[in-house]
Amino acid sequence: MGRFEVRIGGFGGQGVVTMAVVMGETLSLHDNKFCVQTQSYGPEARGGASKSEVVISDEEIDYPKVQEPDVFIAMSRAAYLEYIDGLKEDGILIIDQDLVDVEGNLPDGVTVYKVPATRIADKEVGTKLATNVVMLGAFAAITGQISVEGLKAQVEDRWPRFAKTNLLALELGMKAGEKAKST
Amino acid sequence: MGRFEVRIGGFGGQGVVTMAVVMGETLSLHDNKFCVQTQSYGPEARGGASKSEVVISDEEIDYPKVQEPDVFIAMSRAAYLEYIDGLKEDGILIIDQDLVDVEGNLPDGVTVYKVPATRIADKEVGTKLATNVVMLGAFAAITGQISVEGLKAQVEDRWPRFAKTNLLALELGMKAGEKAKST
Repeated sequence: MGRFEVRIGGFGGQGVVTMAVVMGETLSLHDNKFCVQTQSYGPEARGGASKSEVVISDEEIDYPKVQEPDVFIAMSRAAYLEYIDGLKEDGILIIDQDLVDVEGNLPDGVTVYKVPATRIADKEVGTKLATNVVMLGAFAAITGQISVEGLKAQVEDRWPRFAKTNLLALELGMKAGEKAKST
Repeated sequence: MGRFEVRIGGFGGQGVVTMAVVMGETLSLHDNKFCVQTQSYGPEARGGASKSEVVISDEEIDYPKVQEPDVFIAMSRAAYLEYIDGLKEDGILIIDQDLVDVEGNLPDGVTVYKVPATRIADKEVGTKLATNVVMLGAFAAITGQISVEGLKAQVEDRWPRFAKTNLLALELGMKAGEKAKST
């Protein structure tokens, strides 16, 4: 695999940064990849916007900034509107369908996957705090760019006291991702 | 202020990434700065090494990679040996004095500050999990590059259930930083 770029956008409290950090840790510790994981903060952070990026490669990464993401995970309308134009042609858009609508023109050839991550976390896992882990599971199922075994190990390692909750969130997220792929 | 660069190195479990994330959040949300916060993961992550970087500026940041850090916070011997040569001349070196010794040649003009962050977290705060917050407090006191009020607000906001513990860690870290400056 060459270079693969992921951008995640949402609002504060959704765990966007943690999601990207866990992605980076899993890919390097379990999947034998090089990763650079970046947050850029500016005055817009005061509006509660949160953006996080991961660059994945089989080789060492020279340029750490995301240029044109292959995948954009949009977890808020503001993030969707801000970053949708940057998504690569033929790229993958994953949205939290209860928070984001597809508006305006998409770059050519984009495939849209709708995942009710917040709703699953709230109603099925029992806490909205697990929204980001649900979305990680969906990302794994949709893109195939990260190993499920690696994610499970990393989630257990990172949150030993909340492993059960987070493994459930991962599982339900994967199911939701599979469902989004088949519809 | 122009561009200011911070590199933090340690081992897994010390909260090096969280430390840099909280630094970036505080600077943007409370201190009116632009920040880019980056983790680079490679095969070396498997050895438990953890590195995290923050670039701080009053203006938008074009180049997100740390080039020559103004400050290097070394929380493990492996990280010290790996990154000490990269520290800027006349830069600031902050070490956890129970884990890191100054070895070999330092870049010209470097000032060394010794902070027993792990020991303070363990013995005085009551949990080694607070080591990174102790070190954040020391960084604030030593460099003056981040507002104490902003750090307090961010720590309370991020860990509402553990605010008391983390505010104590911050306070003790600041005292240790002041002490390191005066010796």
